[in-house]
Amino acid sequence: MTELVEKIRKDGSYLGNGILKVDSFLNHRLEPKLTLSFGKHFKAMFDELAVKGVNKIITAETSGIAPALATAICYDVAVIYARKKKPVTMLEHYSAKAPSHTKGGITKLMVSKEFLSKDDKVLIIDDFLATGKTLLALANLVKESGAELLGIGCVIEKSFEHGREKLAKLGIPIASLAIIDSLDKNGISVRKG
Amino acid sequence: MTELVEKIRKDGSYLGNGILKVDSFLNHRLEPKLTLSFGKHFKAMFDELAVKGVNKIITAETSGIAPALATAICYDVAVIYARKKKPVTMLEHYSAKAPSHTKGGITKLMVSKEFLSKDDKVLIIDDFLATGKTLLALANLVKESGAELLGIGCVIEKSFEHGREKLAKLGIPIASLAIIDSLDKNGISVRKG
Repeated sequence: MTELVEKIRKDGSYLGNGILKVDSFLNHRLEPKLTLSFGKHFKAMFDELAVKGVNKIITAETSGIAPALATAICYDVAVIYARKKKPVTMLEHYSAKAPSHTKGGITKLMVSKEFLSKDDKVLIIDDFLATGKTLLALANLVKESGAELLGIGCVIEKSFEHGREKLAKLGIPIASLAIIDSLDKNGISVRKG
Repeated sequence: MTELVEKIRKDGSYLGNGILKVDSFLNHRLEPKLTLSFGKHFKAMFDELAVKGVNKIITAETSGIAPALATAICYDVAVIYARKKKPVTMLEHYSAKAPSHTKGGITKLMVSKEFLSKDDKVLIIDDFLATGKTLLALANLVKESGAELLGIGCVIEKSFEHGREKLAKLGIPIASLAIIDSLDKNGISVRKG
């Protein structure tokens, strides 16, 4: 996605320790047109990959919600965001464990059983593909439900964290809108996904 | 919003202790068309209330993100979701304290200073108006930034928790898409906002 690559070059910044600051358009402040175009590009990429029959989008709170909703709008299917704390309104649920980005330690991702079943054909959409651990946890959660996982899409992939290799065993298409190959004091090396 | 009132009657359920379960369309699973129509209705209500010049939407993670993004799409302005844990990418920030729904205790809501300033004209959009404490915290945060708060919109108001009275001192329009007047074992009494 050329527009995203340009946006990362223009507004992204490197904070050290492998951390990319893109909170002006991805995980704190959002621009509606750009966010909606994430959905359009995911749909176009999965169409080209011959991914068909998607009837549900799954993501994880918090930063996955906006790109996942944008994608759900394009497919006109429901989106479910996995919760990291069990709300009082959640009854029986599927769960999977993933490392926590914010706190260290382990986060439990939870999806209500009533909203995901073996009849579903699912795309997972998230903001980042880095180590792949959160996405793998979501994939395990989808597997537990019996639903079919058709593909994984992420807005920004950090290829140098090798998450794509970890997800390869799932044997499904993985689509990134932008891929960052290196990130250091010399700059951000980013290309179209 | 008639469609939302019908949706609450059809898919909402009462779990006891004043808790309304609407996670099939508001805070776990989302339907794109319904979510987008939240935005359209907020815009129409604020237009009718002569609220003009909105250039930013503010909400709080997590469940506020979808209705706030839908509203930002209609206004074609940026949306910022206040964070409850400080991300590593957040530098200087405004903050306000609100009671935590999930954990008890107090949650700190944080917005980066770089994304909100005295030149902004803000609408706050959230999923629920109950006691009004979270919305009041967001209003205080906007005030701290020097931005002008033009109005507050929430998808579902529980009028029996009297949040609207608490927000009245702000002297700004408050718009709810659906208002629940009572919630008990006899049913959900809900009307258009």
